[in-house]
Amino acid sequence: MSRSSSREAIMEATLTALTTHGYADLTIQAIADEFDKSKSLILYHYNSKDALMAAFMEWLLEDFLAKVEDAGSDDPATRLRRMAELVVVGDGDENERAFQTALLELRAQAPYNEALREQLVENDRRIREQIAADVRDGIDRGQFRDVDPEQFAAAFRSAIEGAQSHNVILGEDAPTESALAGIERQLIDELLYADSATKGKTTGGRGGDVELEANH
Amino acid sequence: MSRSSSREAIMEATLTALTTHGYADLTIQAIADEFDKSKSLILYHYNSKDALMAAFMEWLLEDFLAKVEDAGSDDPATRLRRMAELVVVGDGDENERAFQTALLELRAQAPYNEALREQLVENDRRIREQIAADVRDGIDRGQFRDVDPEQFAAAFRSAIEGAQSHNVILGEDAPTESALAGIERQLIDELLYADSATKGKTTGGRGGDVELEANH
Repeated sequence: MSRSSSREAIMEATLTALTTHGYADLTIQAIADEFDKSKSLILYHYNSKDALMAAFMEWLLEDFLAKVEDAGSDDPATRLRRMAELVVVGDGDENERAFQTALLELRAQAPYNEALREQLVENDRRIREQIAADVRDGIDRGQFRDVDPEQFAAAFRSAIEGAQSHNVILGEDAPTESALAGIERQLIDELLYADSATKGKTTGGRGGDVELEANH
Repeated sequence: MSRSSSREAIMEATLTALTTHGYADLTIQAIADEFDKSKSLILYHYNSKDALMAAFMEWLLEDFLAKVEDAGSDDPATRLRRMAELVVVGDGDENERAFQTALLELRAQAPYNEALREQLVENDRRIREQIAADVRDGIDRGQFRDVDPEQFAAAFRSAIEGAQSHNVILGEDAPTESALAGIERQLIDELLYADSATKGKTTGGRGGDVELEANH
């Protein structure tokens, strides 16, 4: 087994084991049980559960960024919407809730786990960079207003992560639909769109006076 | 000890014990050790750790809403800013980080703890109601644009909770300053303000045409 195919198999097994057992009960053995290789093969590649979890979070990041690209759109608003939906409700997998529940437990361990925390810092940085790049692209196209891309990225990332956490924590009583609608219609359509300064993108154009107001 | 003073003393002790021990190591005994009453007094009022934790979350909600009122402002934007700051970075207590870390662990247990989950659903509902009420107030005053208050509340609540979680999870590398600035300048100043449809609230007054735009 090559390094990359071993890695992929271990990551897939980790995903399955985490979804099945949750984070608290996750062991290297439980992961090994999910594929036809041994615990020692896992420990050959990753010398501790902590190192494995950090590598798993990196793998999830790559998977997430690839899914945003897979949507096949170069329209920045469509890309931001895709990102919001992927984070808040996932891509429709039936095990999504169990997986997100385990991830929430895992993230709550970061203050006690340096390797994990460092990887989550990197994930956060890369995701904010992607959001800011899409915002910059929208501004360059004249499609978005001239907001501060990094500030928007930090607030947008907070909103999608908070909506996901609520979805997991509050379960069926979570206001997920409303939160996602607020993120898409207000944060993207109304806040970002250049041609919808006061109402969102449902109306076209804007008056000269509004433009004047915008430049004071 | 009256019901209410017992309750207050137990809640204060729970706060101290949770901050000291974290959630995983929190026991009724550890809470009892924080004040001069016995474990049995706690169990007389709350018959399990789960029931106590749910009551503690309710107490925190009341404390949070009182702190928003204590800011003494009836300006809706000031109230929303106060709420964001309280949630994201707390009120400057030196134990804030330890406390927020314990709360994150606690929230991650909600999917496994029905009493806790129900209280968190109630907290979420009450906080969103407060946000929506402030937004409605701002719209009624002609200060805010005519956004959907419930949708805004859900997105805003997600953003402040997400920024708080990142602050705890990522520690000193969290983009907290940028997230809070994005929430205050973009979500409140730019998205909500009627007179700053495209640029923020740095100027007073607003033109009639902007008002027309806001009301279509």
